[in-house]
Amino acid sequence: MIKILITTVPFGENHKLPLEQLQAAGIQYKINPLGKKLNEEELIDLIGDYDVLIAGTEPITRKVLNGATCLKLISRVGIGLDNIDLLAAKEKGIKVSYTPDAPAPAVAELTIGLMLSLLRSIHISNSQMHKNDWYRYFGRRIPEITIGMIGVGRIGGRVLRRLQAFGSPKILVNDLLPRNNIAPDLKLDWVGKEFIYKNADLITLHVPLTKQTKSMISKKELMMMKPDAHLINTSRGGIINENDLFEVMNDGHLSSAAIDVFEQEPYLGNLSKIERCLLTSHMGSMSFDCRARMEIEATEEAIRFVNNKELQGVVPEDEYELQTK
Amino acid sequence: MIKILITTVPFGENHKLPLEQLQAAGIQYKINPLGKKLNEEELIDLIGDYDVLIAGTEPITRKVLNGATCLKLISRVGIGLDNIDLLAAKEKGIKVSYTPDAPAPAVAELTIGLMLSLLRSIHISNSQMHKNDWYRYFGRRIPEITIGMIGVGRIGGRVLRRLQAFGSPKILVNDLLPRNNIAPDLKLDWVGKEFIYKNADLITLHVPLTKQTKSMISKKELMMMKPDAHLINTSRGGIINENDLFEVMNDGHLSSAAIDVFEQEPYLGNLSKIERCLLTSHMGSMSFDCRARMEIEATEEAIRFVNNKELQGVVPEDEYELQTK
Repeated sequence: MIKILITTVPFGENHKLPLEQLQAAGIQYKINPLGKKLNEEELIDLIGDYDVLIAGTEPITRKVLNGATCLKLISRVGIGLDNIDLLAAKEKGIKVSYTPDAPAPAVAELTIGLMLSLLRSIHISNSQMHKNDWYRYFGRRIPEITIGMIGVGRIGGRVLRRLQAFGSPKILVNDLLPRNNIAPDLKLDWVGKEFIYKNADLITLHVPLTKQTKSMISKKELMMMKPDAHLINTSRGGIINENDLFEVMNDGHLSSAAIDVFEQEPYLGNLSKIERCLLTSHMGSMSFDCRARMEIEATEEAIRFVNNKELQGVVPEDEYELQTK
Repeated sequence: MIKILITTVPFGENHKLPLEQLQAAGIQYKINPLGKKLNEEELIDLIGDYDVLIAGTEPITRKVLNGATCLKLISRVGIGLDNIDLLAAKEKGIKVSYTPDAPAPAVAELTIGLMLSLLRSIHISNSQMHKNDWYRYFGRRIPEITIGMIGVGRIGGRVLRRLQAFGSPKILVNDLLPRNNIAPDLKLDWVGKEFIYKNADLITLHVPLTKQTKSMISKKELMMMKPDAHLINTSRGGIINENDLFEVMNDGHLSSAAIDVFEQEPYLGNLSKIERCLLTSHMGSMSFDCRARMEIEATEEAIRFVNNKELQGVVPEDEYELQTK
């Protein structure tokens, strides 16, 4: 009898369908009893003889996989694979699937929301108004600025398509891989990352966390940016060096930043001391509809596996390659 | 020699062109020396024998106009006319012009920014993260909700066109006047205001402040709204009764609200005690480009008047009618 461990939480709370699907398929499952993102030790303690993991962002390291003697499939709820040692999984014959399209619209909408907050100082005015402090900030509109986007895949592409409706900003793009046909109506300038750091008024990141992108934006890159630039990260913590960001912003560099993802979550670091740094709690994919779709797709993949059907969300080879580069 | 008083501030600060235009035309002008929004008394003291007023949102009442013995033109920087007694101006033969299109794109962008903040709890998460409090809020995406819009003119129409890029929300609309061809690609349902209050997940106001809209949304209307509705006002203070809004939100009604405009500005009221009430300081038109365009258009209108050229921004008759209804 195949057994499924669901480590991501919350799961099945806002939408019962995933649990109903498992029950209808007669599959035995257990939901993470700690109700929080597991660390490596906690995951090792729990993983036991489960055959399938419906996983979140907890660390699925080689050490975890060494103890997962029965594991045959990791079905990841979401898109990022930085928490999974893909090469260790491959060596052990463990398949890995994910739901890369499901969260994209929610992350794209959050990104546009953060963009407009930064450009118009919404977060700063709100913070000051709640202290009865009235100051009218001038801001800039999207068609008046140069936007730099690093990563123009599923999420970046969706951000670009939504930006079209605001007029035509100048858009500088860069990515880890070449891309085509992202936003056919938008004029995109493919340039080097340094060119983006130096020339964009607003920079937004939509790349995965890999060896190549880890600490991609540290003090050196931050200092290349315009003193009044805006910086957004809704991709993964660790791509921007948080301490360096704190340091340069504390010294007055950058107009503002919006950070949704952190190296360690929950985040308890210094950036909370900076009013013009807009902070959210890894909410990119947290729309009811996208979260439901992620959970349903990951569950359906697990059920296909149990029933020996062909998998539909298998992680492609280039994601494995990104982890070795 | 014709003399111009510029009461709106800041003026000519971010963009020197309006002042250069006045200088080039050899026109004598004075900028509001108090550097703040004038009250009635202050305006009466200043207005003296000026022929033209380049005006902001200060109260240009009958009492003010009674003392303005030489005044022949009010050239309003912006769109709202609630601060001008249009009928008194007409009786005294004072012309009134405005710049209704110039601020619209900036207000529309701010509105979309506030919309996304409310739907995804960006403002709440930011406020909590700055207290080192981590909670991941679920939110809703634009295509998943019913948006109710009261006022679909210059600004509302622009909000609708930008929403198109996010997918297709269900949109309920109502206005003081009938409108055509607002957003040809969007399906709009024309309904009564009560229907909007009862059925919309997010309500946004884009009407002028008139006798008809003054306190349009008071306790009764607020209580018709869904307990988890979101409410946005970037139009004019006074349309929503602020005390009633405080009272119902303090009792837990409404998911959130975003208020940019207030009956008395600077605003120092109770809403600042409510974390889920996003407050901004009348920043709708405050983008560099739109503010510059407003100032330039109002200045050019004043110069046309001085040079006996045909005026281009004369307030149409229906704005006068709205003040009598």
